[in-house]
Amino acid sequence: MKIVLDAMGGDNAPAVEVEGAIQAVEEYGHDLILVGDEGRIKKELEKHGFSSDKITLKHASEVIEMHDPAALSVRRKRDSSIVVGMDLIKKDQADAFVSAGNTGAVVCAATISLRLLPGIERPGIAIVIPTLNGTSMIIDVGANISTKPMHLLQYGIMADAYSRYLLGKTNPSVGLLSVGEEESKGTEFVKEAHTLLSESKLNFAGNIEGRDVYSGKVDIILCDGFVGNVILKISESVADTIMQLLKREIKADFLATIGAVLSSSAFHELKRKMDYSEHGGALLLGVDGRCIISHGSSTPKAIKNAIRVAAEFVKQDVNKHIIEELESY
Amino acid sequence: MKIVLDAMGGDNAPAVEVEGAIQAVEEYGHDLILVGDEGRIKKELEKHGFSSDKITLKHASEVIEMHDPAALSVRRKRDSSIVVGMDLIKKDQADAFVSAGNTGAVVCAATISLRLLPGIERPGIAIVIPTLNGTSMIIDVGANISTKPMHLLQYGIMADAYSRYLLGKTNPSVGLLSVGEEESKGTEFVKEAHTLLSESKLNFAGNIEGRDVYSGKVDIILCDGFVGNVILKISESVADTIMQLLKREIKADFLATIGAVLSSSAFHELKRKMDYSEHGGALLLGVDGRCIISHGSSTPKAIKNAIRVAAEFVKQDVNKHIIEELESY
Repeated sequence: MKIVLDAMGGDNAPAVEVEGAIQAVEEYGHDLILVGDEGRIKKELEKHGFSSDKITLKHASEVIEMHDPAALSVRRKRDSSIVVGMDLIKKDQADAFVSAGNTGAVVCAATISLRLLPGIERPGIAIVIPTLNGTSMIIDVGANISTKPMHLLQYGIMADAYSRYLLGKTNPSVGLLSVGEEESKGTEFVKEAHTLLSESKLNFAGNIEGRDVYSGKVDIILCDGFVGNVILKISESVADTIMQLLKREIKADFLATIGAVLSSSAFHELKRKMDYSEHGGALLLGVDGRCIISHGSSTPKAIKNAIRVAAEFVKQDVNKHIIEELESY
Repeated sequence: MKIVLDAMGGDNAPAVEVEGAIQAVEEYGHDLILVGDEGRIKKELEKHGFSSDKITLKHASEVIEMHDPAALSVRRKRDSSIVVGMDLIKKDQADAFVSAGNTGAVVCAATISLRLLPGIERPGIAIVIPTLNGTSMIIDVGANISTKPMHLLQYGIMADAYSRYLLGKTNPSVGLLSVGEEESKGTEFVKEAHTLLSESKLNFAGNIEGRDVYSGKVDIILCDGFVGNVILKISESVADTIMQLLKREIKADFLATIGAVLSSSAFHELKRKMDYSEHGGALLLGVDGRCIISHGSSTPKAIKNAIRVAAEFVKQDVNKHIIEELESY
């Protein structure tokens, strides 16, 4: 098995990517292809005194920046790490692609190069989130903002396969995000999706509300890409805001400062659990290949985790299970 | 000035409502009309040994429950506290209405009884949220899920007036919630709203993302009622989840337990700041009257704060400013 890592993707590329790649090789022994500026990647590898044939390089002279328009840059920057890396998957020279780069560009390059799985009309990005009961999945968090009810059913089928084969859940429950639990609540879009999901073979639990997302009420949460993207970004922001406000309160209070030092291990542990990069980044589901999209601000550990998840994605052959399930419809 | 309080609204009505009403009378001296089951309200007043002509009662034999369908129950339960209370506003026997009851029913009763302000096509619910810089407003958090771009402009104009005259902000900035800052990002709905807002007299700051909501980047955040409702409920849920997970981590660690006791005052202060009922509940904007909708789980203090905000709403004559602004378009 070979995994392609976009070495130029994240905010601190290629340093973070190279360090994460080395950690993944040392911990899991995977074969990696690092795509990007060969000279800069080599320098980073030398810094760590790393030399092993487990990591090979593939030069790409261009980089798609975070704020580049997705579709346009994929078309124009043909020698960018994202386009070159995706091409390796297309030509079956590698099994999975990991990038902490421009999400839109990865979605676009994957859709163009790899094409969609038979029966899938739009790709979706899924993330695994921590809840009070363990973990749940949300799909879609932003691959597709022109969502149709049928896309939500397809997302549900894909997330169901992923939850079974990669997260080890038996009969995962599926919730549809709306503004009330009753079937009658929600937009026309939500009501149509409700009907499709009710008639499906999924373990459909009906509508759920925003407050149920982090309670772990269901294993899979379905929503359109606009709402999902807002949820993803606002969740990070609420958590950050709480932590920052708490720090201010603690600083203003002498006893609390001592208390905070004593409880700092608990804070760190919480931060680790809340950090979704710990769970291996976001999964691009629906393309005929395996793509993991990590956060732009990923740490080396997050990159390592993304590589681990990519390898499991390959081993468990999730896409085969998705296709089988889709064929039964 | 007279304020109507729905005494049967919240999860612990009428006990919480009566206690909140007494606090409001004692602190602000407002005249209140409590609407609901006269016998039960009297009993609660007696419990507190309260007797003053500042609180008068208006009997209503029915209650619209939290899960009653909004439009249907407003039509059928003509003697419910919400319908009877709203009628007092309609007949100019009182100046503002406060309820911790069924949000949909309050919106529906207000729209039918009070009608909309001239130039407003749909009412919107606004909440004041704590941010790193102070406070911001989000509108709409769920009054209207069939939102049109023009409604967002109307929400912007109403929230602008509210921010100026009640929150004391000069030239409040307005952000449009989308999936990216660039004008080109978002659904067709968002793009059309962007155009309308750009051409308006509002201090429009362009698109903002989910991560900007709690950073205080803008004073007013515009979104459709579906997205706003999800944001509201998920924000509460993230905050709760963080606190619960933190408690678990702290319990698992002896030093952290001592630390947590020492820093508990900081936690309480944070909780107070995060609690949006502290800021006086949600405002129903766009109806020809003043309505405040409190959380179903409101404390007496939250009810008291809602009464305070209702009184300010009347004093500052926000609706007059909204009408003037709308006329200039």
